[in-house]
This record gives sequence, structure tokens and C-alpha cells, in this order.
Amino acid sequence: MAWDPALEVAFHPRVVAMVGVSADTKRSGPRPGGGSSFISSYEQLGFQGRIYPVNPKTTKILGRKAYPNVSSIPEPVDLVVISVPAPAVPEVLEDCITANARNIHIYTSGFEETGEEAAKELGRRVRQIALRGGLRLIGPNCMGLYVPKTGIGSFAQLSRESGPVAFISQSGGHCNWFCHYAANYGIYFSKVISFGNAYILDSTDFLEYLAVDPDTGIICMYLEGVKDGSKLFRQVKEINRVKPVILWKAGLTESGSRAVASHTASLAGKEAIWRGFFAQTGAVPVLSLEEMAEMTMTFLYVKPPRGKRVAVLGSGGGSSVASADVCSREGLEVPALTQETQAELRKFISPAGTSIKNPLDTGLIFRDVSLLEREIALVAADPLIDMLIVRPHLDMAHSIGPDQVDRLVNYLRDFSRDNPHGKPMVLSFNSWANDPWEAELRARLQVELPQKGVPVYSSLDSASRALAKLFEYHRFQKEAAENQ
Amino acid sequence: MAWDPALEVAFHPRVVAMVGVSADTKRSGPRPGGGSSFISSYEQLGFQGRIYPVNPKTTKILGRKAYPNVSSIPEPVDLVVISVPAPAVPEVLEDCITANARNIHIYTSGFEETGEEAAKELGRRVRQIALRGGLRLIGPNCMGLYVPKTGIGSFAQLSRESGPVAFISQSGGHCNWFCHYAANYGIYFSKVISFGNAYILDSTDFLEYLAVDPDTGIICMYLEGVKDGSKLFRQVKEINRVKPVILWKAGLTESGSRAVASHTASLAGKEAIWRGFFAQTGAVPVLSLEEMAEMTMTFLYVKPPRGKRVAVLGSGGGSSVASADVCSREGLEVPALTQETQAELRKFISPAGTSIKNPLDTGLIFRDVSLLEREIALVAADPLIDMLIVRPHLDMAHSIGPDQVDRLVNYLRDFSRDNPHGKPMVLSFNSWANDPWEAELRARLQVELPQKGVPVYSSLDSASRALAKLFEYHRFQKEAAENQ
Repeated sequence: MAWDPALEVAFHPRVVAMVGVSADTKRSGPRPGGGSSFISSYEQLGFQGRIYPVNPKTTKILGRKAYPNVSSIPEPVDLVVISVPAPAVPEVLEDCITANARNIHIYTSGFEETGEEAAKELGRRVRQIALRGGLRLIGPNCMGLYVPKTGIGSFAQLSRESGPVAFISQSGGHCNWFCHYAANYGIYFSKVISFGNAYILDSTDFLEYLAVDPDTGIICMYLEGVKDGSKLFRQVKEINRVKPVILWKAGLTESGSRAVASHTASLAGKEAIWRGFFAQTGAVPVLSLEEMAEMTMTFLYVKPPRGKRVAVLGSGGGSSVASADVCSREGLEVPALTQETQAELRKFISPAGTSIKNPLDTGLIFRDVSLLEREIALVAADPLIDMLIVRPHLDMAHSIGPDQVDRLVNYLRDFSRDNPHGKPMVLSFNSWANDPWEAELRARLQVELPQKGVPVYSSLDSASRALAKLFEYHRFQKEAAENQ
Repeated sequence: MAWDPALEVAFHPRVVAMVGVSADTKRSGPRPGGGSSFISSYEQLGFQGRIYPVNPKTTKILGRKAYPNVSSIPEPVDLVVISVPAPAVPEVLEDCITANARNIHIYTSGFEETGEEAAKELGRRVRQIALRGGLRLIGPNCMGLYVPKTGIGSFAQLSRESGPVAFISQSGGHCNWFCHYAANYGIYFSKVISFGNAYILDSTDFLEYLAVDPDTGIICMYLEGVKDGSKLFRQVKEINRVKPVILWKAGLTESGSRAVASHTASLAGKEAIWRGFFAQTGAVPVLSLEEMAEMTMTFLYVKPPRGKRVAVLGSGGGSSVASADVCSREGLEVPALTQETQAELRKFISPAGTSIKNPLDTGLIFRDVSLLEREIALVAADPLIDMLIVRPHLDMAHSIGPDQVDRLVNYLRDFSRDNPHGKPMVLSFNSWANDPWEAELRARLQVELPQKGVPVYSSLDSASRALAKLFEYHRFQKEAAENQ
């Protein structure tokens, strides 16, 4: 795939024009013609280039000289961010053509997605101008680019830290969520692109760039519609061998498809076609932002499992039954441990009220960290087991005290990152705490551990689903390589 | 169905013998031969009857005279709670027969569920003694009864408040969870029964009692296995016409079935058979405790919807697409609002960046409570809509201030309980808060509102699933009544 130098400039601009920002710093959140928040968010991200506010009605915005139009800016402009009201967009684009500014992000919405005739006509004009002028247009109706390395981004309070994950999204709201909560899952970004109505640049254009981007190792996508489906198919199939592509294809139900039309005026496509797409490209399907985040965390931090045989270490008999059912439904196997492992476990786990077959229901062992460590080590060594899900009961923390909690956390972190058997171990807390202390501990660990590279899942369901998909991804890649 | 006077005594005992409790008050949690926590939990529940500790090794427990055996207690015993180690159980049962104490709860575990031969043999002896003596045995390997009205219960910190919900559970751990977190969903109990290995009394015996129990209006069940499947079928089919039966049948996967054997030594049965069971009895299937709690909350507080057409009121375009997909997948319809309703909404909702078709993506309206109220009233009046799911963004609370949050909460409460169109309205917060203030607000409302009778669901998925099942339940009942 070709490297696109134009997009390279858009992702790493040194000179940015912000058209439509106002001097009003009180209004929160970016909106058409509103506020100076685009400037503030660049500043907060540490943008080292130059920002030129464009607004013919004022002379100064946030201490910067305001220019009446893009063509009056005294140097070449790498990226133009447009937030004027929709009817004013064509004029701004003509001005960009005059100024030879080619990389354009139109934040403004209010085109064909409204369903109104005048707005549709306006959209057609915008597209025509962009085509005629050879503009590389992102949007309209979108949040544009977030590149922490360059310090650009349209949302407030974005992280300045970079990471190997890219996100291409047809929804600005989803970008907002994913960029803000990703850190809770230990996820940081190379490039994030919200591209809205896709008048010129579509998902496939960004994919082309990310395929060869050395800063990107995992690609997440939220798509409502796509213009060139067969191009997307070829791209994803090829990229997916090297960089996992995690894809949420929305709008596949009838109601969802109608909602897509109201949102980005896209055609959502048929569910059967997309099933085939996933089966043949090996792209990893997800159905929500939370699942996308947990799946990304899985690719970042979990080693490829050798098989689908999981051991679940928890407590409670009913809970064990539920665990076995959940894992099976999500596509994992829950085999009984070997007789040897069971015999070793029986040396320190009494028979009454426990089960050591798998799922392991070892009750009180969660109150004795050294025994729990022994249990984990034995299970991980079992040749019938490919991966472990540990479900600590946080109420145990009351009886074992804070120093033992720290010891447990450190042990789980070290064992999860690196154990002699090379087997993945992930966590999912078994706790629904009314107790505020327990709720706080859970909230803390749920964020802290993934940031340290230890995957913690919101539920056993989502943990087993992610592990099953991780296994399937690697199996697909292996078979694809063998069949070549 | 026959009223069982023996069970009536077990549920409302005046004299209780606790065999195997010790004077050790330090050990937390009930366990074989351990602690005095059974006595403490009865005391905490305000039990008004008399408790006789039985322990030959001591003379006083928690200020009460300890008796060497049941037959030495100076009055007739209504209920015996046994927590001696498994090998000592037969002797205690013989003593109960001597004392003519017929209602027995065996907490002790360590029988055939261990898979060990000696333990299986011990179980056979226990069953034989119980049969010979005509004992009405609950258990072994279970938590027994929780009846707030009578003040009996084996767990610490149970609620003293009564309500119309009964729970029959083959797992003590699930009882523990459900009884402790139910209040978060506005759920309070008439009778809760944890019955474990079911040597004598099985789910069908308790169901027979609850069918005619005037304090019980909704019956929840967690079943691993059942001895008399056709009896259960007939019972559920009949009861379900009057009192909804919500059933979690666990262990239907292969691994789950094996876990069931390790837990309560039951036979889990085939998935196809149970699918037929649900289809023909109209029982409401759930797959987790959380779903059971949300489904129960739905029956308690949501009026029967007239159809399956839902309106979703949220904000964000991507979020609307996801909402439409989710509701459709869960079996609801998401029709476009009438032209009239859309025209009325357009009078105060601008077209750019919004959608008023359904799902409603009305963005900033969540920052203006009076406009949101107007939106809700218009949508509820739409003849194409049968029910509403409102998804408030809690980050709006930052901009609108605490008094407006209170106003919104009160409005939602009043409209949800009683609106002129008689349409159900439920909530699911659209918020994943890193912001501690927002997280706290969410946690508070998620508990407070259901306690006031306003259903709040953990996700849109679970809200739409519960509403779809509520509709199906009432449709089934209506069709059953018409076919009679």
C-alpha cells in the first residue's frame, strides 16, 4: 500500500488554521462557531506548531491575532479546522483553495444527515468544491484528528501519552468515549480519526495510511457505512495478518440502519454480507465500545493462548456452575484438571464445600494469599490448561488486610506478565459491593491493574469472549499463513 | 395445590435449635462447627422466638444456656439448624427423631458433591434416616431459610424489610448475593430458600407452598437439577398465570453440567428439553443473578406495555445507532415517530447535529431539564410508541447544577410511576465516569431510584431485554387465557 504524504502532513501539522472559533472562552465543548475550545485542547496537548484563529469579526482570540480568512495567514497552512455554521462552509472552502490549504477538517454538522432538502443541497455543493479544489477533506460532521505525539486533538482533557493503537471512527461521540476511557484499559493512541459523513476521505483512505504507519500496531474501527466495500475487504484481509483489525460494524439491524441514515447518511449494508466479511478477513468483531476497549486490551497484554482450554479460579458452587456455562457459551472449553493436579491441590484444600475439578471453587483460599499463589501455580502447570481466569472476591480484602492485598496484586501482576508456562492469566473481580470500601478497592484495581499491563475484565462473560476471540485471531493468521 | 402446614411451621418457627454452634464469636461467616453467627443473624433480624444452642462441649453460648442435644430441649422444637461436621450429622438426625423435631435444615456440606466414596455413603445414610423418621429436610449443603417477617436467616446483615418476592435457590452463594443486593433494585423478600442437595425437600415442594402463599407475588428460582421434572412443569405452568416465575436454569452447557455435579450432585438435563420447558410454561428465562434482579425489578415496577415499540431518548449519533441495534437484537421495535410528533419536537430542537426520528439524539437538551420534560411528554404521547427508555448523560449534571438534577430525578420518578398515557418509562444512565463526582452521582441514583420504584438498568441491553421479556410474559398469559 502506498504511503500518503498528504495525510502525513495532516497528522503532523506545524501550521493550523482554526476557522470559526470565537473569543468566547465561557462556552464549554466545541460547537459551530462556538468557543475557543479547539485552541485550548491543542494547547493542553502541548502542540508545538503555530495556531492561527480565523474570524473576521474580531482581532484577538486567546491572545492570538485573529485573521479574517485563511488566505490572509502569512505562511502555508498544513491543516484547517472549520467550525463555522453549515451555510458558511462553501465560502471557507473556496478561501482554502485560494490559500492552497489542502488538508481540511470540517467539524460542522447539519448536512444530508438532517434529511432536509436545503441541507442536502448544501452538502452536494461542499463535496463539489472539495473535489474541484483537490481538498483532502475529513468530515463534515466529525471530530477530526487526535494525535498525541503531534499534540493535536479536538476534545478537552485528552491524554498526552502515545501508544500503538489507532482508531478510525464514523462517530465523534464514540471517539470521545474511547479516547477518554482508553487509559482505564491501559490503551494509548498513535492516531485517532473521526471522519463523519466522509465526503472525500473515507475509512479506506485512513486504513491505507495506518497499514504502513510504524507507530500503529492495532487498528480499531467503528463503521456505519463504507463507500468501497471491496477495497475495505482487501485492505482488512491484508493488514489483519500483521496488525489486528478490531471492527464494530454498526447499523446492521433494520432500526440501526435507519439510525445510521440519520447520523452520517451512510448505507449500513446487510448483516449476511458483513458476516462473510468477518469470516474471510479474520477481522475481530465487537458490538460495543466497552467490548472494543477490552478486546484492544487483550491484544495489547495477553499472549496468544495455545488452545481454548480455560481454568477458572473462583469461589462458590453456584458461581462455578455459572462460570462453566458462561465460558462454554463464549466458545472456551473448561476441562477437568488432571488427576495429578487435583491430588496436589487436595493437599491443602479440604473436600467439604469446595471443588478442585474446574471451575475451581476453593472458598476460603482467597483469604490466604500464599495458598492462592500455590493454587495458581499448580493450575498453570497443568498440561490440560491453556489459560487462566482468576476471580478474586474482594470481600476477602477485609479479612486479609491491606498488606496482603498489595502482595496479591503484585503476585497477580508478575504471574500474569510472565509465568514459566507462558500461559495467559487474566482477572475479573467477583464483587458487587455495597460496602463503600470494597467498591473503592474494586474501582481502583479495575483501573490500576490494566495500566500496569494486567488485563481486568468487567465480567467473566467479557473475559472469556475476549480470550476466545484472541485465540481465533491467532488461529486464523496461522491457517492463512499455511495456506499461502 | 395443597397447603403444607409443616412448611408453614418451618417458615414461621417460634422455637429453633442450633446444633453445632460454638462459643467462638470471633470466627466470621458460618461454617461447620464454627462460630455463633447463625444466632447473631437471627438476633439481627429481630427474631422473636426462642433459640436453643446445642453443643455438648460447652454450657453457655452468647449468654444462652447450651444443651447437649435436641432431645434435652425443654419444649417442642419447630426448626433445627445443623452445622456439625458431616460425619456427626446422622447422630444428630436420630436425636431429632427422638425429640420429634421434624423440620431440619442441614447447613453442613461434604457429601456426594465431593465425589468421594465415603462421603457418598454418608449421604445415603443421612437420606435413609430422614426418610425413616419422616423428617422434612432442607439440604444438606445449603443456607436454608430467610424469612424477614419471622426474623430468621443464616446470613449476616440481611434486610429486616419484607416484600412480595420469593427466591428458591440451589446455591447458597447465589442466595447470599441476591438477598444482599436485592434492595439496590427495590426488591424485598417474602421467603428465600436455599435447598442445596435436596435429599428430601426439592424445589417443587417449596413451589407448592409459594403458589398459595399470600405474601408472595413473584417467584425467582435458581435450579441446577430437578428430581421430578414433569411436576415442576405442571406447577410452573399453573403458577405462572398468576405469579410470574423467573427461572435461571444453570448447568446446561457440558462444562456447566459437570460443575453442577461437583456442586449439588444434581443432573443438569439437556438444553433442548429446557427450551421446551420455557416455551410451554411461559416461565421467564434469565442467565445470571444480575438479570434475575433486573427482571424482578421490571415485574415489580413496570406496567405491562401494550406492544414492543420503544422510543430511546439519548444523545450522540453513534450512541443512537448502537441503541437501535441493541433494542432490535433484544426483540423490541424502534419505529420512527409520527410526523406530527417530529414537527412538535422540531419547534425546540434544532436540526444540526440532532435526530428526532427515534432513537432521539437531542444532544444539548439534556442540559435543559424543562426542554427534556417537553421532549419526554411529546414522545410518550406518540401513538406509535409503547414504552420509553431514557438515557440521561450524567455529565450534564455539571452544567445544570444540583437543584436541576433533583428536579430531573423527581420528574422522571413521577412520570415513570404514572403518566397520562400509561406507558412504561425506564432509565439507563449513559455514563462511564472517570470523574469521581459523576461516578458517585451515578452510583447514588442507580440505587436510590429503584428503591423509589423507578427502574434503572445497568445497560441499554439489559433494559431492552427485560422490557421485551415483560411484554412476552403478558402476551403468553393473555393467549393462554384465550385458549382455555
